[in-house]
Amino acid sequence: MANKTYTVAVVGATGAVGEQMLKFLEERQFPVKELRPLSSARSAGSTIRFRGEDIVVQEALPEAFEGVDIALFSAGGSVSEKLAPEAVKRGAVVIDNTNAFRMHPDVPLVVPEVNKEAIRQHKGIIANPNCSTIQMVVALKPLYDRYGLDRVIVSTYQAVSGSGWQAAIELQKQSQAALNGDELPLQVMPVGKLDKHYPIAFNVLPQCDVAQDNGFTLEEMKMDRETQKIFNDHEIKVTATCVRVPVYRGHSESVYVELKKDFDLEEVRTLLSESSGIIVEDQIQEQIYPMPIHVENRTEVFVGRIRRDLHHPHALNLWVVADNLLKGAATNAIQIAEALISEE
Amino acid sequence: MANKTYTVAVVGATGAVGEQMLKFLEERQFPVKELRPLSSARSAGSTIRFRGEDIVVQEALPEAFEGVDIALFSAGGSVSEKLAPEAVKRGAVVIDNTNAFRMHPDVPLVVPEVNKEAIRQHKGIIANPNCSTIQMVVALKPLYDRYGLDRVIVSTYQAVSGSGWQAAIELQKQSQAALNGDELPLQVMPVGKLDKHYPIAFNVLPQCDVAQDNGFTLEEMKMDRETQKIFNDHEIKVTATCVRVPVYRGHSESVYVELKKDFDLEEVRTLLSESSGIIVEDQIQEQIYPMPIHVENRTEVFVGRIRRDLHHPHALNLWVVADNLLKGAATNAIQIAEALISEE
Repeated sequence: MANKTYTVAVVGATGAVGEQMLKFLEERQFPVKELRPLSSARSAGSTIRFRGEDIVVQEALPEAFEGVDIALFSAGGSVSEKLAPEAVKRGAVVIDNTNAFRMHPDVPLVVPEVNKEAIRQHKGIIANPNCSTIQMVVALKPLYDRYGLDRVIVSTYQAVSGSGWQAAIELQKQSQAALNGDELPLQVMPVGKLDKHYPIAFNVLPQCDVAQDNGFTLEEMKMDRETQKIFNDHEIKVTATCVRVPVYRGHSESVYVELKKDFDLEEVRTLLSESSGIIVEDQIQEQIYPMPIHVENRTEVFVGRIRRDLHHPHALNLWVVADNLLKGAATNAIQIAEALISEE
Repeated sequence: MANKTYTVAVVGATGAVGEQMLKFLEERQFPVKELRPLSSARSAGSTIRFRGEDIVVQEALPEAFEGVDIALFSAGGSVSEKLAPEAVKRGAVVIDNTNAFRMHPDVPLVVPEVNKEAIRQHKGIIANPNCSTIQMVVALKPLYDRYGLDRVIVSTYQAVSGSGWQAAIELQKQSQAALNGDELPLQVMPVGKLDKHYPIAFNVLPQCDVAQDNGFTLEEMKMDRETQKIFNDHEIKVTATCVRVPVYRGHSESVYVELKKDFDLEEVRTLLSESSGIIVEDQIQEQIYPMPIHVENRTEVFVGRIRRDLHHPHALNLWVVADNLLKGAATNAIQIAEALISEE
């Protein structure tokens, strides 16, 4: 078992998250026998570097999954919908970073710090939650276990890289155009596939995904229902407002948490500090708190501004920041893969 | 009375808010007999343009208030503390934009759309609330009157100009330096007078003012206690998280509102639309919502993303945006001055 190695496919290998996945497979010495980077026809033929070798990116066709043990998908929901079943049919376990299967009853939705054991129930596909959900549930888990969790009201400050490299380039180009007094190029933000595009440079956009009938956006609904599924507790209530800000990397969240019973604030700090995957940065008097520029390339979830609510006896407030491309996506996916093979 | 004119002093005339005050006095045809622009010794001697004339800025010394009817202060709390009593002693009514007197029991704290009548109780000083409070209470007022207001949980997305022109220049310089890959100049953000300075370009800062003993910042505490004072209702509970974002002008707020009774969402939209000083921009399906870049130079409060809470029967969520230099400061101060003279 210790010597077992795996053929690993990365679908979306040239994208913002795919690139990080390749980096982590290498850095964390994942036992890769063969790496198969896959992409759309457009990016196929380019090469990626892995363990000192150049590997040609192949087009993600059903046959490309022959002999694959683990397939990491991060190329958009429609690609996962079409190709994940093809990969499973050929014997692969799919770890899917898109929204395609997250709420499917047969698909575990996993954040290893919270519900690693759910992996065992997979029937071929394991889903990686939405980036803004992942970092929040990591911070909530120790509080849930100790005090019980009644409700959460969260407002996000999300980085553009959550929408891919194109969005990051758009922020850069728009910022320079704004500084020069030129017209701003508008192509991606707030949602690439929708009709209207607004500037993100020197602006904030209260929309991170398509609208739902209830007036919430899909991103906001994900935070509610994914949290319930990850904790396997349908009584947790999450109200989210998801907002895009002109930051390249690092999602921030202002989180109001109502617990089931009273708590001691020092105990909360200790619980969080001692939890796997969390770093507490919480000394407002010394101006110490998490910020997106400090979390880039960090795999942990950073928590600060921990304070007892002024008005509700069982509530507290947190400021939660993480690298959306890492713990929010690639790191969590690789952690799932690591947990998966450790069970074998 | 209709012909009465006033000698008006503007303290901090060369600052970000002072400049807007001068513009509004002119544009709104405030009955100014004599304008007296005042500033620190450093800026004294420069000239400002008012009604087609160049007027020399004088140093703000106690004697400068001789003969002044109305003194608009926007030069920081310590200047107000020292000079507002001097202005009052010489017969002026002070409208103060700083935090110096806001919670003083003898000082009305006024947002004309909410508590215009409080102006009558002044004893020489009338305070202008904090920018982030003003725009929120304008949006809450129609809901308070119709349904009663239990609690508010708000997270802010505040523009740098709330910290003055220097902060806006810092954002501009840092943004260019970041795009060039140069070292970032750090002088103002998050709080000029504190020791540590962090980048605001392509970052967010979960601190808008000094820390308090309870772990909240002063800005966050202002939103709670100022709201109670403006509504003259000490049972309203406000929990705030105040965050600076890389935006020049326009504060945004994600506001969760728990009302005292159930409501009809269409009625809420109608109530807000028909309220003085509010513009509703609320069609998420059409990607219509308020954004900071659209509110620059607008005097109204913009409300969108109006939606019934998923979990609490009497709660709804709002996205509230306003120009922090105008309704958040200069416009509100001039509206107070207008209300003051209309009472005479």
